Amino acid sequence: MSKDNDEMVVTPWEVKGKIDYDRLIEEFGTQRIDKKLLDRIYKITGEKHFMLDRELFFSHRDLDWALKEYEKGNRFIIYTGRGPSGNVHIGHLVPWIFTKWWQEKFDTRLYFQLTNDEKFWFDQDLTFDKVKQLTYDNALDVIAVGFEPENTFIIQDIEHIDMMYEIAVQVAKKVTFSTARAVFGFENSMNIGGIFYPSMQAVPAFLHSWIYGKKTPCIIPCAIDQDPHWRITRDVAEKLGYYKPASIQNKFVPGLQEGGKMSSSNPMSAVYTTDTPKMARKKVMAAFTGGRDTADEQRKLGANPDICSVFKYYNFIFMPDDKELADIEKKCRGGEMLCGECKQILAPRIMKFLEEHQERREEAKERLHEFSAARLRDEIRR
Amino acid sequence: MSKDNDEMVVTPWEVKGKIDYDRLIEEFGTQRIDKKLLDRIYKITGEKHFMLDRELFFSHRDLDWALKEYEKGNRFIIYTGRGPSGNVHIGHLVPWIFTKWWQEKFDTRLYFQLTNDEKFWFDQDLTFDKVKQLTYDNALDVIAVGFEPENTFIIQDIEHIDMMYEIAVQVAKKVTFSTARAVFGFENSMNIGGIFYPSMQAVPAFLHSWIYGKKTPCIIPCAIDQDPHWRITRDVAEKLGYYKPASIQNKFVPGLQEGGKMSSSNPMSAVYTTDTPKMARKKVMAAFTGGRDTADEQRKLGANPDICSVFKYYNFIFMPDDKELADIEKKCRGGEMLCGECKQILAPRIMKFLEEHQERREEAKERLHEFSAARLRDEIRR
Repeated sequence: MSKDNDEMVVTPWEVKGKIDYDRLIEEFGTQRIDKKLLDRIYKITGEKHFMLDRELFFSHRDLDWALKEYEKGNRFIIYTGRGPSGNVHIGHLVPWIFTKWWQEKFDTRLYFQLTNDEKFWFDQDLTFDKVKQLTYDNALDVIAVGFEPENTFIIQDIEHIDMMYEIAVQVAKKVTFSTARAVFGFENSMNIGGIFYPSMQAVPAFLHSWIYGKKTPCIIPCAIDQDPHWRITRDVAEKLGYYKPASIQNKFVPGLQEGGKMSSSNPMSAVYTTDTPKMARKKVMAAFTGGRDTADEQRKLGANPDICSVFKYYNFIFMPDDKELADIEKKCRGGEMLCGECKQILAPRIMKFLEEHQERREEAKERLHEFSAARLRDEIRR
Repeated sequence: MSKDNDEMVVTPWEVKGKIDYDRLIEEFGTQRIDKKLLDRIYKITGEKHFMLDRELFFSHRDLDWALKEYEKGNRFIIYTGRGPSGNVHIGHLVPWIFTKWWQEKFDTRLYFQLTNDEKFWFDQDLTFDKVKQLTYDNALDVIAVGFEPENTFIIQDIEHIDMMYEIAVQVAKKVTFSTARAVFGFENSMNIGGIFYPSMQAVPAFLHSWIYGKKTPCIIPCAIDQDPHWRITRDVAEKLGYYKPASIQNKFVPGLQEGGKMSSSNPMSAVYTTDTPKMARKKVMAAFTGGRDTADEQRKLGANPDICSVFKYYNFIFMPDDKELADIEKKCRGGEMLCGECKQILAPRIMKFLEEHQERREEAKERLHEFSAARLRDEIRR
């Protein structure tokens, strides 16, 4: 029996096939971010963001409600996270960059969860020492994005379990194996840590309310593949006396090679934050594009930016200016610009971006305590 | 279809039916404590214990190995515990009293786990506040048994999770849902906390080794219904670089009413440590015995101590002197002593026991810190 290789699979642990975002919205039961909601956001932020305009952030749950609460003076916190299963690549930074903007515009607190227990449980080959090393390494990247330390709290599940377990224990009681299996597709071969894990990913949505004893709305900026987790979180929220967390969801950032999202398991498909700028240039120059087989053909027929990873890099992060992007798209389609030339524009941008990120990442080694959620221990109401 | 009500069920969460200890040893795959092993124990302790002589502690795993290690100078720690699902009754104290003796004779450290996460997960009606209250209350009873504080560390799962989670995470990765279901009979309606829980019950078996970075044998005195937990623990031990924990297992302490073990869900079946001595007397006087319908009949035919809860109280705790016990058994069988008379011997013993326990329990309120595992935080090698 042949199997359609393009079949879409989207779970928190696997994204493959051709992604149909309309179908995802329908299947997950989320809402599209429409013009009206966008206007409402911009009325508060006073500034547009290309990731919203370009529908890179395209879907949400209860964002309208959270904004309404905000307008009434009931401020939200934001929560996002990262599973430290490998090095951070530029694709990971896209939603973090948006999160930073969102945090600044709404002047609110960010809880950033590093789910090292999850990755240890879900990656059979990941050792305990390795996942701890990755947690440290990934925290440096989070800090390097430039979040304000006074409003940013990096939570490491294993290290900060003392602040999380009370909530996780209460969430876990409300979630049966049947439910977890239906939502995540757990097999009987799944280890009992992985089965418990959804309780841990719920915690930061409630943490602020729990610490301060004040029911506080929460908005989660995240890639849409993580939505199943917060479906569980939303299911239990009210039973535990919290608000259901809202979310604002982004599309998957494509890799430098054909298809799928950037993947840590294929080094050439992604530019890592620890790549040397020279290595990054090399990856860009080797990237998959929508170009023709020969220069002549391309000059005559034009190229296809819709499938081009270089163009997607521009779209997602390196060409926030809409006019510039439209211009390059026109030249691409019209055959005026060849792929090599186009890559020569992207490469120095990525290199500059990396150099700056790496400088802040180096400084972050001395600044971990400034961002650590451990600072909250003294504020917990027991 | 009729169902045999006497059918034996023994799991960590349910004990019912007529208990066949020979069958349990066979089904669980444990070893009987034989004469040779008993001699070996007594050679070290220099003193007999009636709970061993009477085969109340009757079964074990690897106890011979742990003693051999001890003889070689590789000392073990001991670990036992309690699920704080309700008030402590005298039946619970029986293995703790033995554990105290064992601790003293081997001059070793005891880790006493209060599994409040477990009880919260497994008892649908238990609230979070209630389980925290019970944890406190039960800790008082543990202390009142008279353990040496310098060698005793009471672990409360939720409160001390920071010292436990690293180990639990590593255990959990090695246990699949299939295995947990096969061992514990989990249904799909089990919550995901309960499924994770076996990882937590494994932790104290490894905690000492983990804290001090030194592989240390562990002996677990416990009721045999808890054996499935440590089957899991033993399965993963060597993979994680620890010794398999040994165990020494006791029979269930019978209740004051007919059948089963003492049960917190039937208040009259048990004497609680918080019962007034007067209430305890009342329960003893109302207890189920092996007596006849009339005094005349009993004088003529004698009574049956084999099914008598009063006699079982003597056997398990209140008549450690073998001669005294044999004497009362003889009088009972011979019809020389009626049940009321017999109960008049038990009642003052229980009352005195309770008064002394309650005095120490009251003092314990000021001594919790002396026994808390929190003292170990500073010793953890990170």
